[in-house]
Amino acid sequence: MTGNVFGERFVVVSFGESHGKGVGVVVDGVPAGLGLAESDIQPDLDLRRPGQSIVTTQRKERDVVEILSGVFNGKTTGAPVAMMIRNTDVDSRSYESMVNTPRPSHADLAHRTKYQGFNDYRGSGRASARVTAGFVMAGALAKKLLREELGVEILAYTLELGGIRAAGFTLEDVRRKRYLNEVRCPDQAAAEEMKKLVVKCRGEGDSLGGIVECVALNLPVGLGEPVFGSLDSDLARIALAIPAVKGVEFGSGFAAARLKGSQNNDQYFIDKTGRVATMTNNSGGVVGGVSSGEPLVYRTAFKPPASIAKRQRTVDISKNKEVDLVVPGRHDPVVVPRAVPIVECCTAIVLADHALRAGFISPVVGGKRSKDDRERP
Amino acid sequence: MTGNVFGERFVVVSFGESHGKGVGVVVDGVPAGLGLAESDIQPDLDLRRPGQSIVTTQRKERDVVEILSGVFNGKTTGAPVAMMIRNTDVDSRSYESMVNTPRPSHADLAHRTKYQGFNDYRGSGRASARVTAGFVMAGALAKKLLREELGVEILAYTLELGGIRAAGFTLEDVRRKRYLNEVRCPDQAAAEEMKKLVVKCRGEGDSLGGIVECVALNLPVGLGEPVFGSLDSDLARIALAIPAVKGVEFGSGFAAARLKGSQNNDQYFIDKTGRVATMTNNSGGVVGGVSSGEPLVYRTAFKPPASIAKRQRTVDISKNKEVDLVVPGRHDPVVVPRAVPIVECCTAIVLADHALRAGFISPVVGGKRSKDDRERP
Amino acid sequence: MTGNVFGERFVVVSFGESHGKGVGVVVDGVPAGLGLAESDIQPDLDLRRPGQSIVTTQRKERDVVEILSGVFNGKTTGAPVAMMIRNTDVDSRSYESMVNTPRPSHADLAHRTKYQGFNDYRGSGRASARVTAGFVMAGALAKKLLREELGVEILAYTLELGGIRAAGFTLEDVRRKRYLNEVRCPDQAAAEEMKKLVVKCRGEGDSLGGIVECVALNLPVGLGEPVFGSLDSDLARIALAIPAVKGVEFGSGFAAARLKGSQNNDQYFIDKTGRVATMTNNSGGVVGGVSSGEPLVYRTAFKPPASIAKRQRTVDISKNKEVDLVVPGRHDPVVVPRAVPIVECCTAIVLADHALRAGFISPVVGGKRSKDDRERP
Amino acid sequence: MTGNVFGERFVVVSFGESHGKGVGVVVDGVPAGLGLAESDIQPDLDLRRPGQSIVTTQRKERDVVEILSGVFNGKTTGAPVAMMIRNTDVDSRSYESMVNTPRPSHADLAHRTKYQGFNDYRGSGRASARVTAGFVMAGALAKKLLREELGVEILAYTLELGGIRAAGFTLEDVRRKRYLNEVRCPDQAAAEEMKKLVVKCRGEGDSLGGIVECVALNLPVGLGEPVFGSLDSDLARIALAIPAVKGVEFGSGFAAARLKGSQNNDQYFIDKTGRVATMTNNSGGVVGGVSSGEPLVYRTAFKPPASIAKRQRTVDISKNKEVDLVVPGRHDPVVVPRAVPIVECCTAIVLADHALRAGFISPVVGGKRSKDDRERP
Repeated sequence: MTGNVFGERFVVVSFGESHGKGVGVVVDGVPAGLGLAESDIQPDLDLRRPGQSIVTTQRKERDVVEILSGVFNGKTTGAPVAMMIRNTDVDSRSYESMVNTPRPSHADLAHRTKYQGFNDYRGSGRASARVTAGFVMAGALAKKLLREELGVEILAYTLELGGIRAAGFTLEDVRRKRYLNEVRCPDQAAAEEMKKLVVKCRGEGDSLGGIVECVALNLPVGLGEPVFGSLDSDLARIALAIPAVKGVEFGSGFAAARLKGSQNNDQYFIDKTGRVATMTNNSGGVVGGVSSGEPLVYRTAFKPPASIAKRQRTVDISKNKEVDLVVPGRHDPVVVPRAVPIVECCTAIVLADHALRAGFISPVVGGKRSKDDRERP
Repeated sequence: MTGNVFGERFVVVSFGESHGKGVGVVVDGVPAGLGLAESDIQPDLDLRRPGQSIVTTQRKERDVVEILSGVFNGKTTGAPVAMMIRNTDVDSRSYESMVNTPRPSHADLAHRTKYQGFNDYRGSGRASARVTAGFVMAGALAKKLLREELGVEILAYTLELGGIRAAGFTLEDVRRKRYLNEVRCPDQAAAEEMKKLVVKCRGEGDSLGGIVECVALNLPVGLGEPVFGSLDSDLARIALAIPAVKGVEFGSGFAAARLKGSQNNDQYFIDKTGRVATMTNNSGGVVGGVSSGEPLVYRTAFKPPASIAKRQRTVDISKNKEVDLVVPGRHDPVVVPRAVPIVECCTAIVLADHALRAGFISPVVGGKRSKDDRERP
Repeated sequence: MTGNVFGERFVVVSFGESHGKGVGVVVDGVPAGLGLAESDIQPDLDLRRPGQSIVTTQRKERDVVEILSGVFNGKTTGAPVAMMIRNTDVDSRSYESMVNTPRPSHADLAHRTKYQGFNDYRGSGRASARVTAGFVMAGALAKKLLREELGVEILAYTLELGGIRAAGFTLEDVRRKRYLNEVRCPDQAAAEEMKKLVVKCRGEGDSLGGIVECVALNLPVGLGEPVFGSLDSDLARIALAIPAVKGVEFGSGFAAARLKGSQNNDQYFIDKTGRVATMTNNSGGVVGGVSSGEPLVYRTAFKPPASIAKRQRTVDISKNKEVDLVVPGRHDPVVVPRAVPIVECCTAIVLADHALRAGFISPVVGGKRSKDDRERP
Repeated sequence: MTGNVFGERFVVVSFGESHGKGVGVVVDGVPAGLGLAESDIQPDLDLRRPGQSIVTTQRKERDVVEILSGVFNGKTTGAPVAMMIRNTDVDSRSYESMVNTPRPSHADLAHRTKYQGFNDYRGSGRASARVTAGFVMAGALAKKLLREELGVEILAYTLELGGIRAAGFTLEDVRRKRYLNEVRCPDQAAAEEMKKLVVKCRGEGDSLGGIVECVALNLPVGLGEPVFGSLDSDLARIALAIPAVKGVEFGSGFAAARLKGSQNNDQYFIDKTGRVATMTNNSGGVVGGVSSGEPLVYRTAFKPPASIAKRQRTVDISKNKEVDLVVPGRHDPVVVPRAVPIVECCTAIVLADHALRAGFISPVVGGKRSKDDRERP
């Protein structure tokens, strides 16, 4: 398979560019019978949309989704669901001036070399975070499927931004408060500090990184196909497909490298409901490559956006000469707040794929497939 | 595709169990014409083999590889290469006693639930690190292919163990010194400390985690297929398929989340050879999902082995009752030293796959495919 | 992978319905640098379009293709190429009346059962031959790629219709004459007879079947990946994906079952150009699962369209009662003429995929990938 | 994916050569909990084995299967099942003499060109029908799975051999009589004639072709994933992967091209059991790319084996000179009788894959996956 296809049974195919006609996605493998309309997709797109607040780029896009196929009478049909948003606020002028002066830490030079100059560099083309609008469309669909069929809840939020870390929050805080502030952080006090830092940094023409944490609740035990199709393998794979992500960790993650087994192991007990549970969740809900029944918890590290207004050193490759560069255009001073719905949706894509692979969701929603119901009427 | 298959053009199929007949791999897509014998595979298996030193498990296996197919007259034929090692030193008695008392942070309970009790639990079955012998066989083949066709060099080593971090070493130290000590660390002084810590920890019946760093040199620009088949996506995917891995990061990784763009960006200059290079390598050699031409650098976090001799709390699920458990059997007090060749081999698998996908390696070694040589004689 | 995805390196993803918003396709893996515009795709769509003549359905669709992504400055970029046509002349009324009376030999009942009633039955939904417009868009792109990069020529034509078989024609006749008549047959005399038969049959409310033959010239030796990815395997797979196809055969095909080895074998000789050639081509240009260098020749059998105006017996499944049915709506009396460009395009999809898989076409058009050109400038 | 991998959820990976160490297969995706031992696989291998009678090659192989992985306590574990037979009666001498004189209609020249001389030509290597022993091992497993989980019965048999066609037989004849004669034909009188013809033809140093028909009973409605993963697409794909197959047809097949819709359509009625059924089965049990509930019926055309003792014309490619060739070695005068179990097993592979894809068989045998049983104990 080629690089723009993800999944085995819930297959996501990404297409579109930042400054082309638009960005879209085809999802093949969506079970028949799921209620679906544009209004199920639009809210997540709205959370990802640029131009919403002072902490994001000022590009204005309405990002209105059109479902092109796969829905009939308000329900999915089992056929591929194609969805698309059209680009409207495109200003490609600044990119022409940069064709020969690749932006540091951007895909410019590597993609130019790989595609031998044929890549669409306008607005970074396929390397733009705008491409993740397709991930969000597919993921919004996946979230609905997981919620309705299995009661799965997925919650992503800003854990850390510019070195400021959220603390002392509960899952209920995440549910109620993360969207009450521009930085999508469940700790309101930290959120205030984060926002101030972003405003200051934007003023300096610089950018900030951060960490998004994602929790998924109410998962069945056994999602994931060891060894290469393990749940953490697939989550890590899609996480790294999001632009600006440089790391991913599950449960205690990198900190586990400094713990002893006696400290890191999740010992078992019988909880009040009589169910076997673990005293800690350093595993992050994944052991042996499959979901354990504890909450899935993982974190994704985002670097600061490479596009900054500060003067940087680069090379004019048409003249083979070092030059200074000040990146023009409109950019996010930090991607983390807008990455929150993206991470949530990417998580949903992986979970939906594995729920289908493991048979927890049927090819027909609510459907039962057994030896006895295979007959025609 | 199912979970035991990895890759698109260099396809690795893993099979085998810890206490079954053996562990093996089939590699489909190996170019024809590569010199290959068991002696090309055995050295990496020997580095991974258990029972080598005080820092590893005492299980004694010779792990002698047999190539079952795909080689003729000392060269690959273009047909699938199947390889296998047989298990010999199997002692499954201790596992019977643990059937109903799942080991904390092990796959026991989750796999039992997923496979409804049919999984082979002896020696942890498919969840055992022994399965990675198959990754090593495939990766040793991939390393040879990359080295001979592209001059690629891959170097993994212990960067950190039990909180002790290697420092002040050069790439030349990595090449010359990492295998001079049992912990596979290029910093000899740190290696001494690490080894002492392992011996002490083993004595306490406990275990340790650590971090393996991997560097790949001389890569072509443009390996990786954005967006979902990006180079970092695929490396992250296979990294998380290695037992005990809980995180992966590229270049500045999680630290990037705390840097500003002006600090993290890799600015360009023209180096002494007249080639465009970057002043820093915070990108870790991957930008926009493809190799940049700078060295690939990434790190993998290993948790401490879950099997410890210390008393732990679990539940006897046949009696639905909390009980104490002391895990019997022979175990690694730390997996990091043996993980070094595994990470190196897994990296090679991904790089070989992408070198084939991008056309840097041909279906026939040294072969040129063009419009002009497609004729029959 | 799911059912609407085809190919490994030239990946075709089909979406859309007969009476929905339209029909489309995403092609991932298109090499960068290929000149591409809507005008390269439209001619094949025009050949497939309904309503062109007396031998086709009277549904009127202009089928104007829009390229949604993957092209910049008139060339492909290496990113996915999404293309779509919108439906305009949709009349779904007749299908409501048939919801409970499945049409004999149509997908109605089987799809209703499979999708438990959620499938879009209007105009037969995904089971409609209209879906092949997506195959044609992808295949027109593939044909251009094959022609420009390898000089491959693909020619499909009506060999047989309603039992009347073309005879005595040359390849030059195929090139010049097949589109001079409505039935797309290189034998003009036979074409006259075929057309008369179609007109007569349409008048009787009945339908006709036929055979499309396809020839591909100038193929490199060695396209195809034995054993399951053999060239004939993949051609057969996509042929059976075309609605109404019930059989496929290569070279002497089913007739080979009645020949002796001494009759069927293609003996070798040295031709005038000094090249090794075969005296016959009973292999149809495929031996051992790969292209042999002789012309690829295969045939596809189309059944008569299931939608006929004649009274037929069916069951009203809402009442569990046998009833008579006269299928209303606009239908093709024979699909063979419109199938000609479809078969040609499907062949191109398979050949482009295998030309990329075998390295005969590079990821960048005209590009050379070698150890020496992997450097950055 | 590469060429030696087949399937999506029941994944078959073929390896091994005719004159190498042996032939094997890995099956990934086998549900856990299926009773499995070598004795379940051996009978089908025995039916395929060479040297059994006067109508087959005289190579003597016992073809004893060893299960290498994936079974524990007599049941499958959900892990990959690897199986292998070792070659014993290998005589490669005759092949050395033919290296430069490619056998007409064999893979010799095309594979030599594709693999640039590195292919294992001994015994035809991967192009040998011996490779199908791997298909049979995988298919025997699939047959058991289908039989035990769904009650599916698959029956292949010789329909035609050397132009002699079986007639007047019932399904019960197929079940009881096909293995009572060497040619595996349910019509005993025809079988006599066929055998005589084979003996005569062998005496003349020539070979014969034929047709294998395969019927599958008791299939659920809805197996198959339109459009490219349709049931007939996948059956055709695997059929053409069998050496010597030149065509495949479903139901009325090529004959449908000469029928009118009113003749070919399968009209519905209500049968004695109150179930909707069709009066005819010209569809061969597949409509719209999915199983219809009627018996699956399809036919596969085998050409006469290319290896004949008669003098043939070829080219000595080392001297670029035309020469005569008499193929030495031991060969089948006809492959059809030995192809019967191969076709049956290949059919089972496809059906098992689609039964898993459609959810008719669960990842754990007998298992039910629902919202309610996803809890840990």
